[in-house]
Order: sequence, then structure tokens, then C-alpha cells
Amino acid sequence: MSHESLLLGIDAGGTSTRAVLTDHRGECFGYGLGGRGNPISAGPDRAADGVLDAVEKALSHTQLTLTDVPVVVAAMAGMRAAGGPEWLQDRLVARGFAGRLVFESDLLATYFSGAASAFGYALVSGTGACVIRVQDGRIDAAGDGLGWLLGDRGSGFWIGHAVARAAVHDLDGTGPATTLTDRVLAHYGLARTDVYEQGRWRELERLVGALYAAPPIELAALAPLAFVESDAVTGSILAAAGEHLADTLTAVLRGDGPLVIGGSVLARTSPVRDAFLARLGTAAKGLDLRPVGDGAVGAAVLAVRAAGGAADDAILARLTETVAAFR
Amino acid sequence: MSHESLLLGIDAGGTSTRAVLTDHRGECFGYGLGGRGNPISAGPDRAADGVLDAVEKALSHTQLTLTDVPVVVAAMAGMRAAGGPEWLQDRLVARGFAGRLVFESDLLATYFSGAASAFGYALVSGTGACVIRVQDGRIDAAGDGLGWLLGDRGSGFWIGHAVARAAVHDLDGTGPATTLTDRVLAHYGLARTDVYEQGRWRELERLVGALYAAPPIELAALAPLAFVESDAVTGSILAAAGEHLADTLTAVLRGDGPLVIGGSVLARTSPVRDAFLARLGTAAKGLDLRPVGDGAVGAAVLAVRAAGGAADDAILARLTETVAAFR
Repeated sequence: MSHESLLLGIDAGGTSTRAVLTDHRGECFGYGLGGRGNPISAGPDRAADGVLDAVEKALSHTQLTLTDVPVVVAAMAGMRAAGGPEWLQDRLVARGFAGRLVFESDLLATYFSGAASAFGYALVSGTGACVIRVQDGRIDAAGDGLGWLLGDRGSGFWIGHAVARAAVHDLDGTGPATTLTDRVLAHYGLARTDVYEQGRWRELERLVGALYAAPPIELAALAPLAFVESDAVTGSILAAAGEHLADTLTAVLRGDGPLVIGGSVLARTSPVRDAFLARLGTAAKGLDLRPVGDGAVGAAVLAVRAAGGAADDAILARLTETVAAFR
Repeated sequence: MSHESLLLGIDAGGTSTRAVLTDHRGECFGYGLGGRGNPISAGPDRAADGVLDAVEKALSHTQLTLTDVPVVVAAMAGMRAAGGPEWLQDRLVARGFAGRLVFESDLLATYFSGAASAFGYALVSGTGACVIRVQDGRIDAAGDGLGWLLGDRGSGFWIGHAVARAAVHDLDGTGPATTLTDRVLAHYGLARTDVYEQGRWRELERLVGALYAAPPIELAALAPLAFVESDAVTGSILAAAGEHLADTLTAVLRGDGPLVIGGSVLARTSPVRDAFLARLGTAAKGLDLRPVGDGAVGAAVLAVRAAGGAADDAILARLTETVAAFR
């Protein structure tokens, strides 16, 4: 391989980071997994540690160093909110990097992990939920992705939040009884009691205390409880999640194309995906659903593009295959 | 007046505290307004300052001190979460108090501010929302009051949160256009721009940043924007708020009785109250709606009751009239 052609694509996520060393043809020469890579959630120093760790591991498959890499693309969420590139640029330069560092959206990396065409969609529903429309290989429109307090409708947080609310409203009688309640209580090490004080069951007081004791985003951990056993309440939560995701997609829909699916919520067949497809109706027929596990391949595709290369189906296929061989 | 008969009722709130000096007959001899009085939200020292300030002001209308007061009732939210009574007891004792300190729910103080009967309901919708059913003068059942993250459906927070979400979903195209959007932008010193980046309007990015920069509970400050000018979106938010409040009440409804209304959301005629009454339907006919401004009178009624007195209509009427004369 030629040194001039080596490129690094980095999928820097909130919980882990992936680095892919590739060339213009899309062959993967090295892959590395690092820790938290988002400077907003992890802080700039820790995020740079996570990214550098992944990069070093990817390079360790070769005899090369960062000096040999002319282009690095780092795909991450909230890249504008992170301010300037210094948090990462300075650390790369300290290790000999003399090339060009480009930041891209993590959503675009998700898109190019599953599609090479210049037009299409990516819909991610993990802890958060967001959709993009891609036109000419760039983000042309975005929907939701507004965070747990304002949006992320149909996300893991959204489902977990609905699960928590269903349990407390069951316990105080302002909502229907549901099998979720005992599971939510058990999740917090609680059980039903016979103690009724000030018009409330003691376990409700304790559950409310436990739910407020943690950061709200941790309600996402309750989402899996909705998939365990179905009743009218879980059915309604999961259907509403799927419908919200369909509505978010519909807001940016302008014709047929690939629909790359990121995140765990829509990754496989479930009541969420059933409701999602039912809500889309005939529009679903023009969409080619392609679930992807993460944005590693797409970050590498973005690196190829940043270096002036194409992002065609052949390159995507080669990256998908050769990155998989390293994992 | 006889020293033995003097009683203090304290309505200790999150933003201000009211103290009423009364006797067994319900005549008000002094009234004082103090600062924040809830030890959970304000911290124990600051809350005790707020309560003591109100108490001193109430006593200042007389020649008396705390030594002359055998019973103090402090009505506040979350009294169990506050732990023991020491935060207030110790400070009262330091000023000569040698009587009995009783904590009561702020919701019960709201109830007795508007009703003297042993059976009835109180529904509060201010920043939060909660309902109680009163039986034999005690709280027999409670609905909602679960806080901004889990419940408080139909509260000021709930409306403000819906206003914020309506604005951001208008701006990203995942929700309908609404007149709220410009008002919400203006609330944060923002205006629409022509700048579209990464599939989003710049004002949306800035608005989202502003909305996450403050504690979530401050979204309650956006609630008044929904009442300014009506469109389909505000109409739907306010109607849903009223319906939520009706459903919360319905969960504890067991027959006719007075319905004491606390908080600003249902205080006067509005689309919220219209929807509330419409949702209650015929059940509304058996309820005698009584809006009250705060729990000061009810705290004094609770003090009379704690001292072994009755809480009849005559005492409520006398307290209502004589407290008003002091304000």
C-alpha cells in the first residue's frame, strides 16, 4: 500500500469510538476500538483519549504512524457545539499528524455505513432519535434529534420515559394497570407494600425518589422492559414510538431512496418496527431499509470522500467486508 | 385575647411563606409574608429563615413572642422527604417556642383555604399539578403530583414544556407551524435567520441550546405564551392540559363535594378550564369549584384543628375575612 493514500475514518461516539484505516479503494488495513469519544459528553481530554486509543489500535496493524496519514475524518454528534477542532487536532499533531482533520456528522457516517448513493435517508433511534435526508452526499434536512427534553420521539429514552410514567401513573391510579409496574419496581430494587400514607403507596414514593435521583437520560435503561411482556400499555408505548419515528421520517421524505437504520430501537422486527412501517404505509415501499451497527464504515467512506475519492457501491462493499474481518 | 389560645398556621412555599396568627375562633391577629420556606428546594437554613421571617412579622402585630404560642402548624410540600422537624423546630425553640410543632401537607392547607367540610377535593395546578381527596379531614387519596419528569400533567410546567416542544418541532418541520414559535424565540432573545446548516435553521440550534442551558423546571415560564394568541397548536395544548387535570381528578373522584382549586392554571376562565369542565361532563355538576390564592387560611384552619378546635364554615369564613384584612 502507498503511504500517500492512507486515510483514517473515526466514528467517535458517546460510549465508544471506532477508527478505520483505509485507502482510496476502501480496503481496511487496520481497525481500533477506543473509549468515549464525544467531547461534549465525555469532556475534551477524555474524548481525545478515546479517539487516540482507537487510532493507535488501528495503526498497530501496520508499521505506520499518524505521520503517514494525510486525512483524518472524525464523525461525531454535536460537532458544532464542541467549538473548535483543537481538542483533537492538538493531540493528533503531538503524535506526528501533519495532514487535514475534517469533522463530520455522526448521522452522515451512519448513512454511508449503509448506502453509497448521493440521495437517501438515515434514521437513528438509539438513546436519542434523529433523521436526515442526504442530497449530493451532504445533509440536506434533519428532523428531531432535539434531545431527551425536547424531542427524540420514539427513541430509547422516549420509550424508557414512557415506561417510567406508566408505572407511576399505575401506582397512583391516574393511569391503567400494567405489567410494567412490577418490572420497573424490581429494576430499582423495590416491591409492592401494604403501606399507604398521605394518599399514596409507599412504593410509589420510593420509586419516584429513585427515578429523580438519577440523571433523566438514564430512563433509557427502562426501555427494554417494554419489550419483555406485552399488554395494552406496552403495546401502546411501542406503537406510539414507531409512529413517532415514521412521522419524523415523513417530515423529511422527498421520494424513494435507501433508508439506513441506526440504533437498536428499529434494528430488528418488533412492535416498534411494525408500527413504523404501518404508519409509513405505501411510502415504505420506496425505501430500502438497511440496518447498520455503527458508523465505522461510513466514517471511512467519508475519509475516502474527503481525500477526493468516490463513495460508490464497490467501495462501500469492500469496506463493509474488510472492516468486518478486523472486528 | 388569651395567650393560651394563640396558634400559628404557616403556609411554607417554594417561593414565599405566609404565617397567620389566629385563635380557636378563627380570628386573625397577625399576618406575615416571608421568603422561600421549603427546605427541600431552598435548603434547611434558608427555608427556616423564610419561615421565621413570616412568623416574626405575624407576631409583630401583637405584643407576643413565640413563647406565647402553644401550637404551630407548618404546611409544606414533600414534608416526608424533608426528614425530621429539626430544621424548623430548633430555630423556633431558639426563639422561645415551647409548644407543639406539626407538619401538614400543603395540599391539605389548600383544601382548608376553600372548604371546611370533612369530605372534598383539592386540585392544584401551578408549576406542578396534584389532586387530593379529603375524607374525615385527612388526605385519603392523591393523584399525580409526580413532578416535572414523571407527571404534573396539565401543570404550568407541562404547558410550558409543550410550548417549547411545539416551537422546536415547528422549526425542524416535524410539527405544525404555530404562532408560538416566534414568541418562544423572542423569549430567549432570538429571531429567525436565513442560515441553514447541516439541515437545520441556525435559530433552531440556538433555541435548543438556550432551552437546555436552564434547569428543565424553568420551562414553566413559557406557559403564559400559550394564552397570548390562539391557533390550532395552542388550542390543542391548552385543551390537553385541561383534560389531563380532569383525568387526574377523576382518578380520585368518589361523589360530590367542594373542589378547591389552587395554582394559576385553573384559577380563572380559560381554554384550560373549559376543557377541564367539558371532560368532567356531568360529574362537574356535583363539584363546587372554589379557587383560592394560597394556603395561608388553610394552614390557620389546620392550626385550629391541631389545637383541638373544629374547622367549620364559620371559622373558615372568619379566617378568610380577617386574614384578607391584613394583606
